[in-house]
Amino acid sequence: MYGVILAGGSGTRFWPISREQNPKQLQNIVGTGTMIQNTVQRLLPLIPIDKLRIGTHKQQATETIRQLESFGFLPNHLLAEPYSRNTALIIGLMAKIISADDPDSVMAVFPSDHVVTNTEKFIKVIQKAETMAKKGYLVALGIPPTRPETGFGYIKQGSKTKEDENVFQVEHFVEKPDLNKAKEYLKSRTYFWNCGVFVWKTSVILKELQQHAENIYSQLESLKHCLQKSGKKLDHIELDEKGSKIFSALPNLSIDFAVMEKSSKVVFIPADIGWNDVGSWNALDEVSEKDQAGNIIKGNVLVHDCNDSIVYGQDRLVATLGLKNTVIVDTQDALLVCAKDRSQDIKKLVEELNKKGCSEVKVPATVKKPWGSYTVLDSGSNFLLKRIEVLPGESLSLQSHKHRSEHWTIAKGSAKVELNEDTFHLEVNDSIIIPLDAKHRLGNPGSEVLIIFEIQFGNLLDENDIFRHEDLYGRR
Amino acid sequence: MYGVILAGGSGTRFWPISREQNPKQLQNIVGTGTMIQNTVQRLLPLIPIDKLRIGTHKQQATETIRQLESFGFLPNHLLAEPYSRNTALIIGLMAKIISADDPDSVMAVFPSDHVVTNTEKFIKVIQKAETMAKKGYLVALGIPPTRPETGFGYIKQGSKTKEDENVFQVEHFVEKPDLNKAKEYLKSRTYFWNCGVFVWKTSVILKELQQHAENIYSQLESLKHCLQKSGKKLDHIELDEKGSKIFSALPNLSIDFAVMEKSSKVVFIPADIGWNDVGSWNALDEVSEKDQAGNIIKGNVLVHDCNDSIVYGQDRLVATLGLKNTVIVDTQDALLVCAKDRSQDIKKLVEELNKKGCSEVKVPATVKKPWGSYTVLDSGSNFLLKRIEVLPGESLSLQSHKHRSEHWTIAKGSAKVELNEDTFHLEVNDSIIIPLDAKHRLGNPGSEVLIIFEIQFGNLLDENDIFRHEDLYGRR
Repeated sequence: MYGVILAGGSGTRFWPISREQNPKQLQNIVGTGTMIQNTVQRLLPLIPIDKLRIGTHKQQATETIRQLESFGFLPNHLLAEPYSRNTALIIGLMAKIISADDPDSVMAVFPSDHVVTNTEKFIKVIQKAETMAKKGYLVALGIPPTRPETGFGYIKQGSKTKEDENVFQVEHFVEKPDLNKAKEYLKSRTYFWNCGVFVWKTSVILKELQQHAENIYSQLESLKHCLQKSGKKLDHIELDEKGSKIFSALPNLSIDFAVMEKSSKVVFIPADIGWNDVGSWNALDEVSEKDQAGNIIKGNVLVHDCNDSIVYGQDRLVATLGLKNTVIVDTQDALLVCAKDRSQDIKKLVEELNKKGCSEVKVPATVKKPWGSYTVLDSGSNFLLKRIEVLPGESLSLQSHKHRSEHWTIAKGSAKVELNEDTFHLEVNDSIIIPLDAKHRLGNPGSEVLIIFEIQFGNLLDENDIFRHEDLYGRR
Repeated sequence: MYGVILAGGSGTRFWPISREQNPKQLQNIVGTGTMIQNTVQRLLPLIPIDKLRIGTHKQQATETIRQLESFGFLPNHLLAEPYSRNTALIIGLMAKIISADDPDSVMAVFPSDHVVTNTEKFIKVIQKAETMAKKGYLVALGIPPTRPETGFGYIKQGSKTKEDENVFQVEHFVEKPDLNKAKEYLKSRTYFWNCGVFVWKTSVILKELQQHAENIYSQLESLKHCLQKSGKKLDHIELDEKGSKIFSALPNLSIDFAVMEKSSKVVFIPADIGWNDVGSWNALDEVSEKDQAGNIIKGNVLVHDCNDSIVYGQDRLVATLGLKNTVIVDTQDALLVCAKDRSQDIKKLVEELNKKGCSEVKVPATVKKPWGSYTVLDSGSNFLLKRIEVLPGESLSLQSHKHRSEHWTIAKGSAKVELNEDTFHLEVNDSIIIPLDAKHRLGNPGSEVLIIFEIQFGNLLDENDIFRHEDLYGRR
């Protein structure tokens, strides 16, 4: 069985920890790893790492690969999407790719940012789903609802299948209901949450796409021919220019709408597996460890006489006194304090911040790059101070700037600096000046992380003042 | 009339804005200036700047003088106390000093960190107090209570004085009452808050000290002879070593306890002047401007659906959602979130932080120095990055370090660097390495603030690794 993890989310519901450029699946919100690391961990007993595929937006490709390096995930099993699109297209393309190598394959699809607390049951359910998929069914998972949730789609239970009395026909799929309907559904015990996990044969889903979403299906073969390696240094898969154009022109449909709601081959397995979509901060109440007063705490935090609150700090000291049902999320460049029962409305808050042009909505304080990361530490009228971290063996592009000179000092590790025609090897405490217009490149030839402090001087200090002469990662 | 401002507070009730080393009177908490700036501003219509004296702990001396520079305050009118002591001693010493120059003088005493909203009435009351003081009285101000406050001492109203029907004898002073008594006092309309403002002739208060606090009085003459200029560069007044010893051995009494409760010359003036001691964050409700929803907001803050909350941010983005009666105080290195009705308990919280050894209780992120300030921006296993600001014309000490080398880069202004036998003049983008053990000094010969970034390298990076060969400010 192949596994396809859909990691296309750009969620800001966990702002300020998640950002447009640093979405939820890449954050450690519950447990010990990031959401996508936990997802992969959960799947490994079912699916070997070399049969896992990931679809994500190109902006998240490098960081996703980095986070899964220790699992042995193969970078060329990640497909970087050029635009954010709903699930039908990436599922179709993945099915096309897998089926080309292995026409009789079974493929399971998983969101990247959900929690399952009962892993044993989860494994059994997916194994049963695999059995049913091999018989030609499109298999969904139905979560028994525990509250009248208005944020999910539902599956209406039909009759038992002839093959397995624990697998059911789907009478129909239901869009997100209003509260009254959700209450009815909860009471009836015949409605289940659609959690976005599906299992099917690649050949079957492709046929169903052909029948119900011909416009998407008809382009899959062309798209597959437009796949290429993404750069000299990064070997994930992306669409070339032609492929990106085709991709952007195709309809933006969910697989539910494109196929599941229309196909006659759909069945579902009720799955009481402790599933949680962790859709907002207050969902942590159901999935995180608490102290005796019901608080969920992380980081350099002191809570004094507080109940049922969530306090996520980092290195900075956070002290709280006399709070109830409050969510505090402290990051280097932005702080959120929110009533817990309003955490669904963070989306609105983020929209308001966006309108005001707050860059903190999009960009995290530490900006991840293919070669490492940078963090702005200080700035003034004509200087800017950055901490730059370069991973072992990586290099920035060969670049020059029109409006600034730079002063670099090595704080940790060793650096190889190309400056016009010369090459310098610098160690801790060494420094070098990069004049305006000089062609330069910073690399880390060592085996530990390189940290440098860069002070930029100039009248225009802008990320866009960069001319790339050469780049290992194919950036322009 | 002379004015003496008592600025000895080391309050942490406004933590994290106020710190042990950066107390409330030096912070901008209400209005446009710091508390002590607002206090001086309020007094200027009554007392010319050259007749103002300030008593403060030596740790706050330089910063206090800096904050009052623009008023033309004379640095040698500030007396830096070697230890934190209650009011009797500093009042006695100030009376001694003023009376030596001007034996017939009237002296008014003011706390440095209170708010008065009705300045016109305040001026009239103090003028009346001056008139009464000239007649030989010790004049207190009595604030008509507006709530059953248990945190203040009270004055029990006696009969009218013969000189003025709006000035009253004091039947007695009352220590902080319990809640039941405080309620009685409020109802009776014959009890007034003792707000710590006093007016008297220096000759009268000295005589009363002689009579009621002989142990203090008897040392005032010797203490006066131990006063000296504080350093080459800073010309405030301090006690020499002998004086500091005498000072530390004297009883730690309030002027209320030492004199006012015992003297027969005490009268008071009821003063409905909009006084507020701004004793905790929730006091801001009475003295600060609010938005339509009752929020008090400062800094880079967005409040969304919040009521009756206090949100004090700085540059970092603070976003809040759905809060009621919550206090949020965000500083560079520490964050407080607190239920407003618990803001009296911040003291306890700070004690708990203190026990845990949190340096954020004592030291602010930006540490003020006689020559300017520094801020730690980043640190790692064997490096530390500081932003150092040197004021025009100032210099750090001639110093050396046993355990670290330093790398300086000029970000703004120009620097004079002494390094062993050499002197260098550095401008923006220049840098210099200070080797381990090298004698060095950083100065700002220019007319704008000098900003440098200092990266320290070494295995022991500690503020105490400093040997001062010479210092303009007399530090060792």
